[in-house]
Amino acid sequence: MLMRKAHIISIGNELLIGDTVNTNASWLGTVLTESGFYVEQVITLPDDYSLIIENLNRSMKRAALTITTGGLGPTHDDITKKVVADLFDAELIENDEVLNHIKQIFSKRGYSLSPSNIEQAMVPENCEVMFNNQGTAPGMWFEKNGHYLAVLPGVPHEMKFLAEHRIKPKLKSVFPENEVWLTEYYRTAGIPESLLAERIGNLDEYVSNGVGIAYLPSPEGVTIRVSASGKTSARAEQKIVKLRKLLNKKAGNEIYGKGKGLNLAGVVGDILKERKLSIAVAESCTGGLLGNVITNIPGCSQYMKGGIIAYSNDIKTGLLGVDHEIIKTDGAVSKNTALQMAKGVAVKCGADIGVSTTGIAGPDGGTQEKPVGLVWMGFWIEGEHFALKSIFTNDRLINKERTVAVVLECLRRQLLGIGSYPYNLKPQFP
Amino acid sequence: MLMRKAHIISIGNELLIGDTVNTNASWLGTVLTESGFYVEQVITLPDDYSLIIENLNRSMKRAALTITTGGLGPTHDDITKKVVADLFDAELIENDEVLNHIKQIFSKRGYSLSPSNIEQAMVPENCEVMFNNQGTAPGMWFEKNGHYLAVLPGVPHEMKFLAEHRIKPKLKSVFPENEVWLTEYYRTAGIPESLLAERIGNLDEYVSNGVGIAYLPSPEGVTIRVSASGKTSARAEQKIVKLRKLLNKKAGNEIYGKGKGLNLAGVVGDILKERKLSIAVAESCTGGLLGNVITNIPGCSQYMKGGIIAYSNDIKTGLLGVDHEIIKTDGAVSKNTALQMAKGVAVKCGADIGVSTTGIAGPDGGTQEKPVGLVWMGFWIEGEHFALKSIFTNDRLINKERTVAVVLECLRRQLLGIGSYPYNLKPQFP
Repeated sequence: MLMRKAHIISIGNELLIGDTVNTNASWLGTVLTESGFYVEQVITLPDDYSLIIENLNRSMKRAALTITTGGLGPTHDDITKKVVADLFDAELIENDEVLNHIKQIFSKRGYSLSPSNIEQAMVPENCEVMFNNQGTAPGMWFEKNGHYLAVLPGVPHEMKFLAEHRIKPKLKSVFPENEVWLTEYYRTAGIPESLLAERIGNLDEYVSNGVGIAYLPSPEGVTIRVSASGKTSARAEQKIVKLRKLLNKKAGNEIYGKGKGLNLAGVVGDILKERKLSIAVAESCTGGLLGNVITNIPGCSQYMKGGIIAYSNDIKTGLLGVDHEIIKTDGAVSKNTALQMAKGVAVKCGADIGVSTTGIAGPDGGTQEKPVGLVWMGFWIEGEHFALKSIFTNDRLINKERTVAVVLECLRRQLLGIGSYPYNLKPQFP
Repeated sequence: MLMRKAHIISIGNELLIGDTVNTNASWLGTVLTESGFYVEQVITLPDDYSLIIENLNRSMKRAALTITTGGLGPTHDDITKKVVADLFDAELIENDEVLNHIKQIFSKRGYSLSPSNIEQAMVPENCEVMFNNQGTAPGMWFEKNGHYLAVLPGVPHEMKFLAEHRIKPKLKSVFPENEVWLTEYYRTAGIPESLLAERIGNLDEYVSNGVGIAYLPSPEGVTIRVSASGKTSARAEQKIVKLRKLLNKKAGNEIYGKGKGLNLAGVVGDILKERKLSIAVAESCTGGLLGNVITNIPGCSQYMKGGIIAYSNDIKTGLLGVDHEIIKTDGAVSKNTALQMAKGVAVKCGADIGVSTTGIAGPDGGTQEKPVGLVWMGFWIEGEHFALKSIFTNDRLINKERTVAVVLECLRRQLLGIGSYPYNLKPQFP
């Protein structure tokens, strides 16, 4: 297959001295790959005039498409726009739409415009302005002898917005598809990468002629990426029919959904919506992370009642109705505390489902029999009442993340009647 | 100041198609910067022979030091070692120490050695082997006409181990320190980058002779990085005395602390600990994020009681004691609801301080008079009772983040008796 070359140029001192991790480049890398481009290089440069000029010239010669991010901010060290204007020797002219947009943002927030803000509405005369609903710096699109340059701000959510809503459509019109690219993401949770790979087994016979597969681990779970190309989408589809079947056969229970943007909280939310079930959370060691993840999903108010962050034992007993006796005898991190927290929060919040977390997040507070990383998770699901116990890591934040992932995945499997539990944990009943 | 140029070359297809974020480069960027190097570029390349050769040649001409990561694994697509050997036209010879090390690792895990594993013990004859205690691929150090090349594996913990224990000492001997480097991070919150930069004003007279300053924006706030070099640390210190004074004079109220690792929740936590004050949170639109951020700080149980995630109105009225009347007349997103939530949660949880959030996170649910991004934040601080109103963005997750940052920064300023509010918001009293 013939793929077009793309270069990414990331601009900003903070990237080179390590103050900021370059997440923009990998995000764009995915977008470009899925759009049928071959990303030949990512180069990260300081806010240095001659270095940026030199590399822009090089990339625009070598690549069909060059995308820059960063250096469009209001401060004096942001020079990307000037460099690009000089590169095309273009004048900077004021763009009314952008200026009004900036004025609106500032009046909304109630502070006055500074000259540096007004400057952000100046754009090279020869560019196509890519209006930025998310911020003050517009994106810019240039063309020179059949080579294309997109200039985007470095703020991730602004960059992503412009890539999704301005660049992608542009690419479709400028680079008509000669090959159709098909990429599928199978999201799994509650199974380690090594086990998953073993379960699925050798794939040599499936991944020939333009079909690829990769395991992408993350704190929430392992994503399986399958890609295929063909003259038509039907052709590409055809190539992975067998592979799809295999994945569903071998890992059907662990695959919670298909799609890159997908996440566990969203999938569980959809099930709850469909079943007209409501949920409430009782969080000790996760301290609000579970509620946060659930409420990151738009429209969650249809099923999310809320919850209680029971960090202190007084709140566990006072607000959630955990017996003082149990705290005294079993301890705050125990099966019975988790069970009572889950039921308690469902009752208190008038929810069909209650889930709870209580554990030793660390780094301190561990003992011989209750080490750092020990977490009890309680479940009260339409009357079904059980708890799961797991020992995670020594890292406080990872322990919180893992706990939330296990709770959500357990919920999903329970609601779908899948007979297994994440990481093969064994349920413990009252 | 004379700084030596360093280039970083990251090798691996997974970095370009976006499956892996290049955290190695930013980590190395910090190490090199703190060792007195100027990182002129980071380039990420696929496992492509000619591209790697071309860029190695370029970097070794332009930079005093070049570091590569990746492409040293046992699989067929790992070609970095072959490329480097060809670059110096060197033979690959077997290294006994490395081979024995690899044999040990495998016998421990109970696997037998494959030919590809044995190949990992082959190294270019002209390199200095950097023994890798953490894995099977050794690091390699080369010298050519006064230019140095370090070749490291891409596995982060192996790369970090070799950088710490092999590269750093090497740099000290090869590049004797002619300068001491000093870097300070001033963390600010509650003021936009443009305003902060204006407030601090022109810095030309401060940033001459080896002193540098940069503004690093993030969702939580803007960090000001100040760096200076000198023959001795005392000399370097001296150079920024005036600048320090200036920053504290111009932005003293907005600077919540000094230090790279520092964060707002930790700073507020320290104040609460010192004052022996406890806190509880009532979260509607932030859905648990505030509690999560507070409980990310180890030892927070000394001051964090917990809170109530009041996503549904029933919980606002039932558990937090917000008047039905107020919900009906003013609405759930209103000054009075925020005020009652803050006081209510303090009382319910027996905390000295209660804070609350209620808003329209979006993307839907906005109206003419209550648009998406509108947030009310309530404060009950040792009897002081007020609310702040702000309108953030159209992005759900960013609205949650901003809200949490404003609440924490307002808390900090209130507790320290600073007479201003984040983003110059005006407090509104009952």
